Amino acid sequence: MTSSRPGHAPMAHFPVIDDCLQVGGIPLPELAARVGQTPFYAYDRQLLDARVRALRAALPDELSIHYAIKANPMPALVQHLAGLVDGLDVASVDELRVALDAGMPAAEISFAGPGKAPWELEAAVAAGITINLESETELARLAAISERSGRTAHVAVRVNPDFELKSSGMKMSGGPKAFGVDAERVPAMLARIGELGLHFRGLHIFSGSQNLRPETLIEAQQQTFELALRLAEAAPSPLEMLNIGGGFGIPYFPGEQPLDLEPIGEHLAQRLPEVHERLPETEIILELGRYLVGEAGVYVAEVLDRKESRGQTFLITNGGLHHHLAASGNFGQVIRKNYPVVVGNRVQGTERELVNVVGPLCTPLDVLAQQMELARAEIGDLIVVFQSGAYGYSASPTRFLSHPEPVEVLV
Amino acid sequence: MTSSRPGHAPMAHFPVIDDCLQVGGIPLPELAARVGQTPFYAYDRQLLDARVRALRAALPDELSIHYAIKANPMPALVQHLAGLVDGLDVASVDELRVALDAGMPAAEISFAGPGKAPWELEAAVAAGITINLESETELARLAAISERSGRTAHVAVRVNPDFELKSSGMKMSGGPKAFGVDAERVPAMLARIGELGLHFRGLHIFSGSQNLRPETLIEAQQQTFELALRLAEAAPSPLEMLNIGGGFGIPYFPGEQPLDLEPIGEHLAQRLPEVHERLPETEIILELGRYLVGEAGVYVAEVLDRKESRGQTFLITNGGLHHHLAASGNFGQVIRKNYPVVVGNRVQGTERELVNVVGPLCTPLDVLAQQMELARAEIGDLIVVFQSGAYGYSASPTRFLSHPEPVEVLV
Repeated sequence: MTSSRPGHAPMAHFPVIDDCLQVGGIPLPELAARVGQTPFYAYDRQLLDARVRALRAALPDELSIHYAIKANPMPALVQHLAGLVDGLDVASVDELRVALDAGMPAAEISFAGPGKAPWELEAAVAAGITINLESETELARLAAISERSGRTAHVAVRVNPDFELKSSGMKMSGGPKAFGVDAERVPAMLARIGELGLHFRGLHIFSGSQNLRPETLIEAQQQTFELALRLAEAAPSPLEMLNIGGGFGIPYFPGEQPLDLEPIGEHLAQRLPEVHERLPETEIILELGRYLVGEAGVYVAEVLDRKESRGQTFLITNGGLHHHLAASGNFGQVIRKNYPVVVGNRVQGTERELVNVVGPLCTPLDVLAQQMELARAEIGDLIVVFQSGAYGYSASPTRFLSHPEPVEVLV
Repeated sequence: MTSSRPGHAPMAHFPVIDDCLQVGGIPLPELAARVGQTPFYAYDRQLLDARVRALRAALPDELSIHYAIKANPMPALVQHLAGLVDGLDVASVDELRVALDAGMPAAEISFAGPGKAPWELEAAVAAGITINLESETELARLAAISERSGRTAHVAVRVNPDFELKSSGMKMSGGPKAFGVDAERVPAMLARIGELGLHFRGLHIFSGSQNLRPETLIEAQQQTFELALRLAEAAPSPLEMLNIGGGFGIPYFPGEQPLDLEPIGEHLAQRLPEVHERLPETEIILELGRYLVGEAGVYVAEVLDRKESRGQTFLITNGGLHHHLAASGNFGQVIRKNYPVVVGNRVQGTERELVNVVGPLCTPLDVLAQQMELARAEIGDLIVVFQSGAYGYSASPTRFLSHPEPVEVLV
């Protein structure tokens, strides 16, 4: 028996024994048999545990960690994470249900989103969770709901900062944005919250996501603290919480390196004492989605056919774009790049070849790997897409062409 | 009462009465009330009828028209179209069920897709529909199924042409492709079909989609006929059908003009007699998806909030990327362009403004219109996205962030 870990960072988390990938400690073909169908997503509990452990070890103890359910709302996974983190962040009423089902106390759940419908605000107030206010309209709606229902709304203000997170996968701050309240208008809103008698919880400042550069994240955190301290002066009551967002990225593509937590932890350890001195009652929260779950998940599809066409080889699988839009390169990417992919039941193989891995859909967009070197695969082999634990299944158009749904398992 | 049709081509199909858009002959707010929720998709029967009528009028009578269900698989819509067209094309077993439920005879249903699983082939053989063979593996599988089940498989060969459809939205032919069998390998496959005793139906030659240039489509049809005539010589029996694909586009973006059917009809009228002379027993089929349904549908969302942020106005709606991925610019587009959008209950309005229309999701990708001039909209107004009848709902990641599903109505 030989055991190895392939060099490419994204798959280094999953052991390979006798050339066969192990997920959740189970050889992949065994897991596929147990799942009972392909394609499927599998999320590895041990990797979730290890990720939270590594974060806790690298970051100051007093920092709270929240999981943003939107990255992966599978109930069993949320349930598992609820036991590891300090709170959950939801983006819809359905996510709120999953958070409450997982047993997280309402006081540790917050709700963000640029457009919350009145019925969603009603549900959030009734549940007693913290609502991140993103506009004056939401404030007025919440005041009316509180008055009518006799339930006091718990509110934080989501701030659209006056700086931006550089080199982020997605910029969500700085300049005109739909998200949150422009920093310069926050003091007036804070005053209004006080007048209306809502329960003021604190601030949420989120500047971007999917960032792999510690120095950029450190700079954003630095600016976030400065902005928060400035805005806190206008708060109607001491901040109970300050959500500094997240933005921690994971490597997807060749050349990308995993985020180095050490400098981030060092900076926070230096910085937090001063923040605590000025905001002694404030829980500082780091909100992470993709970073907690992305690397713990794989997507697995089965080879239906091998085809040669004019000098190229195509592996045609029963999974593709409809199950994993991001891996197909059609979810916000400008230039398509291959996600890390292997043949799960023969990782190195005895023969290597350059192939295209495509799905079963009648569209040229349905690509999982383009001209990639893989072990030579046969019909029935299992194609694995790594880095699939976040924004995979839930971010995919599963009805497109009406093929069967994938399943999800937590192992 | 004033009645007008706005100048922009894509919305010219829908009448505007008293500045209010009519869908299915119903003022939009009335329709929204009847649907009982926003967001929703509405498809207009009269526009579907008109589209098929216009096609029949422009094209030679002997040409059959098939509807490719993948463009929009809503059962009521497929049922309606089944009464207007000559056949249905399916891309999955679920689409096959919809086609059979609609009452279409199996002889007029064909099944295409680069990767058909064994269980899908079994179902297709049992249903007695035509299976477009896309590889040697599929042929071997079908022969085995036929032998084992005693049901003869009805097969056509999907050809990967040796030419490509120029200036297409999506190229699906020429060069190495996952789709169909390379033209140069088709004769051997035709011989093998004869040896195996399967029921040979004909050929399927599909060269691309979403094309707005008649001259390009004419050239592709010309090359398709030439290729078909050449390949027919190697056929084990006379072609019963020849599916020449479709590729007819619809205008989405400013500056795009609707496809002019006249030259296409003229060319076919000239060309078909010769084709019929050489292939006297062959039904010639034009397969259209998007072209039949795309312009008959609208997506309707409601304004939840109006926000100003640093000099820009944002209309935040309860609909967005999760319901209409293509309109957000995240489905195969390289550069995001605005779909045609109006405020449905005040199309011209009394005041115009430059706005961003965004959805409720916590992602900067969730955009329905970017810096677009619209009537000034208020909370509760209805935002309409035109050209939404094809690849809308079914091509969208509706679970993304776990917001409520849109509904679909045929009116």
